[in-house]
Amino acid sequence: MSGFPFTALGWFGAISRRGFLGTSLAATLVPSAVTAEESVTAPDASSPQPKSVLPPRNIPSRELPVPKTVSPQLQAFIGAPYPVGWNDIPQDTTAWKQLALQSAAAVASDITAIKEKFRLQVEKTTMAGVPVFVITPPEIAPNNRNRLLVHIHGGGFVLFPGEAGAGEGMLMAGYSKCRVVSIDYRMAPDYLFPAALDDVTAVWRVLLASYEPSKMAIFGTSAGGGLTLSTILRAKSQGLPLPGAIAPASPTTDLTWSGDTVMANAYLDNVLVSGNGWAHAATTLYAGTHDLTNPELSPIFGDFSGFPPAILTSGTRDLSLSDTVRTHRKLRQAGVHAVLQVFEGESHAQLLTPFVPETKEAFDEIVGFFDTHLKI
Amino acid sequence: MSGFPFTALGWFGAISRRGFLGTSLAATLVPSAVTAEESVTAPDASSPQPKSVLPPRNIPSRELPVPKTVSPQLQAFIGAPYPVGWNDIPQDTTAWKQLALQSAAAVASDITAIKEKFRLQVEKTTMAGVPVFVITPPEIAPNNRNRLLVHIHGGGFVLFPGEAGAGEGMLMAGYSKCRVVSIDYRMAPDYLFPAALDDVTAVWRVLLASYEPSKMAIFGTSAGGGLTLSTILRAKSQGLPLPGAIAPASPTTDLTWSGDTVMANAYLDNVLVSGNGWAHAATTLYAGTHDLTNPELSPIFGDFSGFPPAILTSGTRDLSLSDTVRTHRKLRQAGVHAVLQVFEGESHAQLLTPFVPETKEAFDEIVGFFDTHLKI
Repeated sequence: MSGFPFTALGWFGAISRRGFLGTSLAATLVPSAVTAEESVTAPDASSPQPKSVLPPRNIPSRELPVPKTVSPQLQAFIGAPYPVGWNDIPQDTTAWKQLALQSAAAVASDITAIKEKFRLQVEKTTMAGVPVFVITPPEIAPNNRNRLLVHIHGGGFVLFPGEAGAGEGMLMAGYSKCRVVSIDYRMAPDYLFPAALDDVTAVWRVLLASYEPSKMAIFGTSAGGGLTLSTILRAKSQGLPLPGAIAPASPTTDLTWSGDTVMANAYLDNVLVSGNGWAHAATTLYAGTHDLTNPELSPIFGDFSGFPPAILTSGTRDLSLSDTVRTHRKLRQAGVHAVLQVFEGESHAQLLTPFVPETKEAFDEIVGFFDTHLKI
Repeated sequence: MSGFPFTALGWFGAISRRGFLGTSLAATLVPSAVTAEESVTAPDASSPQPKSVLPPRNIPSRELPVPKTVSPQLQAFIGAPYPVGWNDIPQDTTAWKQLALQSAAAVASDITAIKEKFRLQVEKTTMAGVPVFVITPPEIAPNNRNRLLVHIHGGGFVLFPGEAGAGEGMLMAGYSKCRVVSIDYRMAPDYLFPAALDDVTAVWRVLLASYEPSKMAIFGTSAGGGLTLSTILRAKSQGLPLPGAIAPASPTTDLTWSGDTVMANAYLDNVLVSGNGWAHAATTLYAGTHDLTNPELSPIFGDFSGFPPAILTSGTRDLSLSDTVRTHRKLRQAGVHAVLQVFEGESHAQLLTPFVPETKEAFDEIVGFFDTHLKI
């Protein structure tokens, strides 16, 4: 509220009946508006900040109802309980591989349903030795005849091997009426950083021989959103041409897991649930012995100047909402055309829930963004 | 994550070691991906939804640290404790007026600091009998010579009477190098709905006699963001010309307080804290006996077609984050050019915190948006 410039200083005074200012913790911690200096430039969100001396906030337990402000179809997903085993962390290589196989089996029927609904042709092949799925919709939109959308799947650099990873790419092919190549990159525990990025970059090099970069986009969710961003960082560093647009969703951009919503949205998010579950263990596994602030692992610590136009998607309950908005801010600070969409009540990667109206809405926005920014 | 189209169906299966599917609540509630129908059109977020039968989620108590991912200056505000008296609800007219006076006194020193920092001239006058503050920066940018920015302050339709309400307008004048008119509209408890909207509309009519509508923007935060939207609805219904752009921040668009973050961000937000405090009481007071879903009270229930380009601002801890993103989605569904920015860790209206880097960043984005969309 206006007058609320004032949130911490004026606000407390405004509604205090007990002479709050001058006696409280806040009064000693909050810089005076008169003397505090404003940085000339925006803060560098990429630098890890020193430990704050401010105490944490105690959040009471409470009941969180299912929102009525989303479609009934989506309500069923938002209202679902936490995944069984979300904090059941595999203890060895065999257990991780078992989890990956389970993830693939679990989505198999959805993959089939998506292929059928959109009448997609899915061809498995390799590019530079990397397995990929070429997904072709029954009709290619006229603008899309020379375009290609490149999909990088999520799953914490561990889950959804093989065709199981291509579901998001299939949804995109269906909604966009454009060809999609979905990359089945190498994953942990067998292959650690930078194997996944190496594979994506190798495929990108192959595609550059056949397609104009300005007619291609790269997109992905969660780890796939992070890989989308780190692929751009690496392409920049190697002098490779960049795509015409990117669309990272719920991107895993910070393997230090320091974004505020990792804590703030803990237990609100019913997909990842908290930063202490399998997903944190998976990204740490993939990082191996590398510095977690390496921009090719955690692109939020990289230089976003010169990035292509970007559309970012998240949800209000997403554990990665902070990483999404930090990425958006940092792109804007670098002068990049970047837009943000956030969906009511959605948890991590829930924009991919198949066949709910909000998913079509999110994809339609991304498709429209690609259509605007990719050359024909 | 990709494969996570799958969040509720596949996901559970993926990490379950106990054959979750087929036995759980979710399995009976979650529509099958194969049989569920996707709406052809996007959901109508404006219609109040029927009560869901899904049970609420039990969120455990926990500690929420101050994020290190924002500037040290902002950390002090995010880390401040809840306002004393946030849930101390005035019980009669005298107490409400006392609270309003306290709010004005509390921000007086900030108002002085803002005026001094930006060397602003502030002139009190009236338009159509409504008190307004005309705020003039020391230098008007060349593009802004014929432009005017119209400010509607927040405060739950109760707080920040007089010059106390003009702080956001002063920040805007300073950052934009453009003239601002800030409207000191009538408020509760003395004047209920639609007094505030009547006053804003009356001022808008006066301004239309002197300025091209395409060279004006309307902006405001919290109740002022809601009034920005309802002013457009009323101008449409009365056939008045619309401004060239609008900028509602943390907008109070839903006086039924049904947005998901009212509950999800409760106790995370250190400005409003929850939907059971003074702010809910204030908006209900202002509504009087009117239906809370009246679009002139709760613009989320209105028709956004034909709205001017809009830039919306919120924070990841904002109790009004849902209302901000619902407004953004609904504007996009109506085909309006609308962009969203969400700031890391910020609570309700905390984008107005004076003299922190993130505030300059938020205002610079809004100023740039106005510069793009207002005629010269």
